[in-house]
Amino acid sequence: MMEEQSNAPVIILVKPQLGENIGTAARAMYNGALTQLRLVKPRNGWPNTHAIKPAAGANVILDNVQVYDTTREAIADLNIVYGTTARIRYMNKYLYTPQTAAENIAQHIKTGSRVGVLFGPERTGLDNEDLSLVDGFINVPLNPEYTSLNLAQAVLLIAYEWFKTQIVEGEGVVLHKNDSPFASKQELLGFFEHLESELDNSGFLRVLPKRPVMVRNIRNMFLRMPLTSQEVQTLRGIVASLTHPHNQRKGRGI
Amino acid sequence: MMEEQSNAPVIILVKPQLGENIGTAARAMYNGALTQLRLVKPRNGWPNTHAIKPAAGANVILDNVQVYDTTREAIADLNIVYGTTARIRYMNKYLYTPQTAAENIAQHIKTGSRVGVLFGPERTGLDNEDLSLVDGFINVPLNPEYTSLNLAQAVLLIAYEWFKTQIVEGEGVVLHKNDSPFASKQELLGFFEHLESELDNSGFLRVLPKRPVMVRNIRNMFLRMPLTSQEVQTLRGIVASLTHPHNQRKGRGI
Repeated sequence: MMEEQSNAPVIILVKPQLGENIGTAARAMYNGALTQLRLVKPRNGWPNTHAIKPAAGANVILDNVQVYDTTREAIADLNIVYGTTARIRYMNKYLYTPQTAAENIAQHIKTGSRVGVLFGPERTGLDNEDLSLVDGFINVPLNPEYTSLNLAQAVLLIAYEWFKTQIVEGEGVVLHKNDSPFASKQELLGFFEHLESELDNSGFLRVLPKRPVMVRNIRNMFLRMPLTSQEVQTLRGIVASLTHPHNQRKGRGI
Repeated sequence: MMEEQSNAPVIILVKPQLGENIGTAARAMYNGALTQLRLVKPRNGWPNTHAIKPAAGANVILDNVQVYDTTREAIADLNIVYGTTARIRYMNKYLYTPQTAAENIAQHIKTGSRVGVLFGPERTGLDNEDLSLVDGFINVPLNPEYTSLNLAQAVLLIAYEWFKTQIVEGEGVVLHKNDSPFASKQELLGFFEHLESELDNSGFLRVLPKRPVMVRNIRNMFLRMPLTSQEVQTLRGIVASLTHPHNQRKGRGI
């Protein structure tokens, strides 16, 4: 795993003020499988014991931090660098959302580039000098009435979007089910016929002109699920039990 | 702006432990323009002065918090509810990423549904009982070696993905349905209780040690649909008709 991560983007914190924030930023990085952290002139020096506890579980990142005197040195070996900014700056640069930036980063990395993302000091963000060095800005789309994010949260959103590009393409929704396979249509139709015959008996479907649309509506409900084979058995058990309670004393499990 | 927000998803924190975390969760909500916060049995009661400072700038959310005794009451007026979970649970439910969940939420809200997202207590997450009530799970894709997120970070990722759906149109799958609105949770729970009481009577649920898991499995099937208000009435009619055929001669339409 560590080898794969070695070409993941590098996170560069420029003049971070508090050790705690370096620690929580390291955690947020690790959530998104980012492991390379660089610091430019951390205010309270490095190493900083205040970073250790907040980084709980992500200490591997702190152990490998690299420290630089200037932003220029911190990005010298990289090919593509993005700068995060809370305010839109009037410079002629590409402006990315975290998602489009992550997609771009993934493309650049695929073609062999080394990529970094710069984050400015807690209160002020990156200054114009540092922003002038980057290939593009990243701005997180947020409620215009409340755009304030702390450093770790900003790092988390970038790391999260990066990680999304690294997982299996495609489906974001899966039906999480146990081992029972989905029911065959034969099983499902068997259940429908069972239910409908009981509803004929009980009088629920006795208005014949309405019967076809009622049957269709009931089927549509159950077809929307989809059901496992086991669940269709359960539904049949429910209908049998409701209609013939005394014959069902042996019961059935689910 | 506030009017538009009124149909944005509701955030529901179940048994949150620390006031600070309620405050930071409120901030994270506000970043994504979410303003409706509900609490189920906050450990240290409500209001909680410890929430105020961490919520700096998002106090409007704290001022309008609604507090409930149970999760059931907190979701009673909602139509669609998602539950966040760090571990994958073996229940037959749809599992969403934050992005696909946000896209689904946006679609449901467009068609008039009220939507909520449940978050469990800080250490333990939602319990199985609460998870059995939801229409789908949300799990954040993260570095499998480090999936730990704090409450505010989890809320932030959902709020962020929600906000993204509000600025750029995304394609989704819409359930094409007639004019009947989706059922409220109260209607749905009413149906569950009706069905379960009849299944108690009929002997289907008579093996008491198995009853909770059987009930959960049955609920999970129906929660997967989702059902309109009219369809829940139909299901109740079906159960009533199957159990009391002779009392139902007057029948009911669909």
